[in-house]
Amino acid sequence: MNDKISLAHGDGGELAHRLIQDVFVKAFGHNEQAKFDSALLVLHSNRIAVTTDSFTINPLFYPGGDIGKLAIAGTVNDLAVSGATPKYLTAGFIIEEGFSMSDLKKIVDSMAGEAKKAGVSIVTGDTKVVERGNADGIFINTTGIGLIDDEMSLDPNKMQVGDSIIIGGTIGDHGVAILSARGELGIQTNVKSDCSILNHMIDDVLRTVKSVRIMRDPTRGGLATTLVEICDDFNVTMELYETALPIRQEVEGVCDLLGYEAFYLANEGKVIFIVGQEEEEKVLSILRQHEIGKEASVIGKVVGKDKGRLYLKTPLGTTRRLDRLSGILLPRIC
Amino acid sequence: MNDKISLAHGDGGELAHRLIQDVFVKAFGHNEQAKFDSALLVLHSNRIAVTTDSFTINPLFYPGGDIGKLAIAGTVNDLAVSGATPKYLTAGFIIEEGFSMSDLKKIVDSMAGEAKKAGVSIVTGDTKVVERGNADGIFINTTGIGLIDDEMSLDPNKMQVGDSIIIGGTIGDHGVAILSARGELGIQTNVKSDCSILNHMIDDVLRTVKSVRIMRDPTRGGLATTLVEICDDFNVTMELYETALPIRQEVEGVCDLLGYEAFYLANEGKVIFIVGQEEEEKVLSILRQHEIGKEASVIGKVVGKDKGRLYLKTPLGTTRRLDRLSGILLPRIC
Repeated sequence: MNDKISLAHGDGGELAHRLIQDVFVKAFGHNEQAKFDSALLVLHSNRIAVTTDSFTINPLFYPGGDIGKLAIAGTVNDLAVSGATPKYLTAGFIIEEGFSMSDLKKIVDSMAGEAKKAGVSIVTGDTKVVERGNADGIFINTTGIGLIDDEMSLDPNKMQVGDSIIIGGTIGDHGVAILSARGELGIQTNVKSDCSILNHMIDDVLRTVKSVRIMRDPTRGGLATTLVEICDDFNVTMELYETALPIRQEVEGVCDLLGYEAFYLANEGKVIFIVGQEEEEKVLSILRQHEIGKEASVIGKVVGKDKGRLYLKTPLGTTRRLDRLSGILLPRIC
Repeated sequence: MNDKISLAHGDGGELAHRLIQDVFVKAFGHNEQAKFDSALLVLHSNRIAVTTDSFTINPLFYPGGDIGKLAIAGTVNDLAVSGATPKYLTAGFIIEEGFSMSDLKKIVDSMAGEAKKAGVSIVTGDTKVVERGNADGIFINTTGIGLIDDEMSLDPNKMQVGDSIIIGGTIGDHGVAILSARGELGIQTNVKSDCSILNHMIDDVLRTVKSVRIMRDPTRGGLATTLVEICDDFNVTMELYETALPIRQEVEGVCDLLGYEAFYLANEGKVIFIVGQEEEEKVLSILRQHEIGKEASVIGKVVGKDKGRLYLKTPLGTTRRLDRLSGILLPRIC
């Protein structure tokens, strides 16, 4: 087999067959279902969550992860924050002619490792190859199916004044790590992406905390955009305490220098919980038992219904309305 | 809203939000589930089929279809040939900066129309935008979920000597239409792609024919590659009658001229049935009641077990072994 991906690897013929056998089946495990055009699955619940994401991140390898790890974590996390137990993933690859076979193997191995950690199976896939210059290395789509059990109690409509907003840890790490890896910051940083699967930690919370109203993972658009979406969709007003936001010093430094705001930067291993205030301590203590949740913090609260606005309480005591991210360009962050 | 896609349409912020509302939700229907990171579904069966496909076809618009129609039909057909009733699709878009908003709308409308015809819902999606020069217009991933009912009787292990191989119509139309639209044939043709959904026609067959062993849709790699895969996976030997293959005269002409073989050219609206010989007439008569099945034909039979080979019986009466497509380059045919 060649050391570069060629157009023939994508034409459905002999080379495509060998690529599937030698790279994908080898990493993802042999699958009887590879004999069919679809994976056939028997589910243990008829309530499911389905989510899809395409990953075009640049660079493909970055401090803290790579596109393969991200493609698994991103989709697993979308299912987990929906209250589902992630079970099955599909993987669709669009590869540029000439792409390094060894990089492809690294990415696929990274996907297999992360899928194993998350407890999900990659059940079916697809590979397309486009001519040199018509893609940028590799793009990956993962679509996930998760099962929802009958006791799932998330209900965003139960959000009420006084509910606590909790974030699983520091914000903006992924955004800064990627911009830094691309050399776009003009400065060096040691910030690593927070890219990681969240499903086990979330599971621990949901098992004992009954007042979680909604969860989200604040990826593109950052914490602020995600909260604005919740406010907008469910007509609640929230207040965010700027001084309570967990932000690494280096991320803070980059923001100060370049005029970014950390709450608009992408995260790939963070979860937002909106939870009854009476259970905020319980949530924090569960999160902090996890390495990735050590810096979990209460960062705000629900202050009203019916308006759908997000306010930031600044260190000066003033209040500023936040909207969705707009006007700064952070493309291909995921 | 701009008339071109910009990087900000993919950053998860304000413009991305408006793109989703003004283009996707408008075409695919309003969806309460857009408020969550996943679509939440209640299934009426716990046996499902899942399939994924990325579409990178060039050109995006071609005689007989466009990338949007193809992205729906391709995934719907993969589910249908697995014996499932296609129900839910996800749609992931990777768009090149500068792509025409009106072309995007055309493509999305085409998807919506085809999904409606097929009876499937597009339940969740994702949009990424990459910088100019890092993709070729638009790539679309669709992942599909179909339900399998308890009476589904497909069983490829029941294939036996004497079983008939039936094709739903003429072969090679899609391949020739695309190569022609790209100007790669050096000649003009009027051949249209056969791109179309197959689920209703397949459903009609399965409702009355009980001896269907396996179905496949011969897309990339064509009829021969698909049959080789079946032979290989299930250890059966098949004979294909070259004179029985339904091929349009123009497709035949292109093949003669350029040295292609129609059974290696892609199809996007054809289904192969392997069926008990006693029911071949029944299958043909059902297929021929459908506009897209008018030229359905018996094209070969299963002649042995345990060898896993595909033979072509030529018009001269000689026999030639066929293997997977290799050595000719037909990239981005789907």
